Amino acid sequence: MKTTTDSKSPSPRREFIRRSLLLGGGVAFGTQTVFSNRNLYVASSNSEIPEGNIKSVGYAAQSATSGLNRWEFERRPLGDLDILINIKYSSICHSDIHQIKGHWGPQSYPQTPGHEIAGIVAAVGKNVTKFKVGDRAGVGCMVNSCMECASCLNGEEQHCDNRKTLYTYGNRDEKSPTGITQGGYSTNIVVTEHFAVHIPTNIKLEDAAPLLCSGITTYSPLMKERIKKGDKVGVVGIGGLGHMAVKLAVAKGAEVYAFTTTPEKIQDILSFGAKDVIVVDSPQKLFPYAGMLDFVISTVPYQFDVTSYLMTVKPYGTFTQVGLPPAGTLNVNAFVLAGGRVNFTGSMIGGIPETQEVIDFCALNKIYPKVEIINPEEINAAWDKVEKKQARYRYVIDMQKLK
Amino acid sequence: MKTTTDSKSPSPRREFIRRSLLLGGGVAFGTQTVFSNRNLYVASSNSEIPEGNIKSVGYAAQSATSGLNRWEFERRPLGDLDILINIKYSSICHSDIHQIKGHWGPQSYPQTPGHEIAGIVAAVGKNVTKFKVGDRAGVGCMVNSCMECASCLNGEEQHCDNRKTLYTYGNRDEKSPTGITQGGYSTNIVVTEHFAVHIPTNIKLEDAAPLLCSGITTYSPLMKERIKKGDKVGVVGIGGLGHMAVKLAVAKGAEVYAFTTTPEKIQDILSFGAKDVIVVDSPQKLFPYAGMLDFVISTVPYQFDVTSYLMTVKPYGTFTQVGLPPAGTLNVNAFVLAGGRVNFTGSMIGGIPETQEVIDFCALNKIYPKVEIINPEEINAAWDKVEKKQARYRYVIDMQKLK
Repeated sequence: MKTTTDSKSPSPRREFIRRSLLLGGGVAFGTQTVFSNRNLYVASSNSEIPEGNIKSVGYAAQSATSGLNRWEFERRPLGDLDILINIKYSSICHSDIHQIKGHWGPQSYPQTPGHEIAGIVAAVGKNVTKFKVGDRAGVGCMVNSCMECASCLNGEEQHCDNRKTLYTYGNRDEKSPTGITQGGYSTNIVVTEHFAVHIPTNIKLEDAAPLLCSGITTYSPLMKERIKKGDKVGVVGIGGLGHMAVKLAVAKGAEVYAFTTTPEKIQDILSFGAKDVIVVDSPQKLFPYAGMLDFVISTVPYQFDVTSYLMTVKPYGTFTQVGLPPAGTLNVNAFVLAGGRVNFTGSMIGGIPETQEVIDFCALNKIYPKVEIINPEEINAAWDKVEKKQARYRYVIDMQKLK
Repeated sequence: MKTTTDSKSPSPRREFIRRSLLLGGGVAFGTQTVFSNRNLYVASSNSEIPEGNIKSVGYAAQSATSGLNRWEFERRPLGDLDILINIKYSSICHSDIHQIKGHWGPQSYPQTPGHEIAGIVAAVGKNVTKFKVGDRAGVGCMVNSCMECASCLNGEEQHCDNRKTLYTYGNRDEKSPTGITQGGYSTNIVVTEHFAVHIPTNIKLEDAAPLLCSGITTYSPLMKERIKKGDKVGVVGIGGLGHMAVKLAVAKGAEVYAFTTTPEKIQDILSFGAKDVIVVDSPQKLFPYAGMLDFVISTVPYQFDVTSYLMTVKPYGTFTQVGLPPAGTLNVNAFVLAGGRVNFTGSMIGGIPETQEVIDFCALNKIYPKVEIINPEEINAAWDKVEKKQARYRYVIDMQKLK
């Protein structure tokens, strides 16, 4: 089995990740942490552990159609392996909109979305070893898993074999006073230390936040495909995820072909390093690229003409869909799948070790998302703009403005 | 690029096929041929080359709804690299029905279908080296290609980069007196020698015919996945293709899990060597197999719940769709694609060297399709039964009965 062999014989890099994970409570990947207590929200010293539920303020939806409004709620008490993070920045992902509006299925409310979270550690449980108060820390799309199964031990906690992956918001959670996990459009979060990552000092927190989903979601499939210098990489949909895919693929040395439906984005995308920008206003625009690309990643979170894009992939190349349309539905053509000899795959975020890796990679190589900072009261307007493809390219909410 | 590396560094077997192909006019793979002139239709000696168009009789459709009727037509004159085959047996593939009825797009008529063809060489062009009169020969789904491009030179003529793959029936063909290629539900066929394969003497012609499509179409993806002893292989849809997939995977040492909607097939399928037969009358029947199978091949030629079957594949395993539904349309779920870490692929028949290989493999290992021989006038009734899932498992038309 070609693919089984691959998974049985992991690459040196994967093996390093796996071993690092087995060695202890986390992997630091050489990041430096800086102690600072000027940002503490609850704890006033490194040793103080808050007792009881922890008060939080967030922006939450009351229903699929309510929009988001200020909401006071409580986080669980700090457990022995938990850390409390004072959230400084939280960015807006299209997934927040899909999930809160029920596009992926019915939801529990009130629900605070947000899974691109950057802040400062404000308190640590008594057995925490990975963080100390004052550390810069990030949280992405998940906050727990079984940590015992093969996938978890392999650094793929998002694929927990025991189905214990706990997503950052909207998942049933007995430990949460609200009954479900509550996300990062809020002033703080309590999370098991393993599921937080270190944010190096040489990247701003507002630039790091989007990496926790849009960065890792695009980085992981690029790494799975071992993209290297000179590979021809297509990126379909140049929004929050897509613009990171362009930057990351360029950083790996790829020739990047960016496919967008928005002509106004051309100059931006060229500035991200793309070799070519194709404004796709008809399937015919794709014909010159038939069978040309080594790898294509699609970030499009709607149903779209995926079949025409499958045709741009070289024989035995891979097309990876990371955007998740309403209900997940995609129509593909079996003739094209067979005739094009394409591997059609999906990819779901990335594991915690790889999330640490992408943040370190971006900090080291100065790869930053293009962000626009907004205040919490602008969230609803920003969501409208995301849906209208007007975001350039990630809205980052300054959570310090929420009182 | 994982996949590109694979294609740049072909397996020893693939490399052997490629080199064999480059060496000359074909590969015999150790098959033995027997001279016999008792079956000759046109030529009465080894050296006689018929002149002008060659008369043929077939069963043809006059329209998408006409059914098939006896039809006299002409084949092209024998070219220098052509062979004339007197067809003895031609079997019925579900593709014949889809194409003739216009399910895959509009057709030209009259059209004689049939791409599982076995017979005896009746004449050879003056430059033919691969065959001599009296040889047992087969023709599958294609009858020509450019033979110059990378795919053709790599033994993947069905993927000709110059789009010159000429399918056995219904393709526009200037050389054909009828303007299109005409298939094997007929008394003879003229074909470029490269696109015919040798049929060893230790397999009956009526057993060899179905291998030309159903055999190669299921064998090729099994070989691409390097199926080996102990691998868990799922086969979805146990008809003409599916029952060969079961037999071939069993022959390669796999544990085979057969998924069918027809409970009456259980005993047959067990006799083919399957370890387990699952009658899928609801998606719930698939739950126990979630994430269990190394490789799954689907032969289902209709739209079906492909997403539920994608969930039966192990992480990083492959699901290959070879059945071609009307218009090719399949709905897949992006969440399952991402969450299941499955490679969703298609596969289109197989190249000529690999077609020779599967026939030799089946002859050597006594792997025969389960066939029912019918007379030409029973074709229309047989098509009805195929559509009603009543075939057990391949109807083979005795073309010697057609006068």
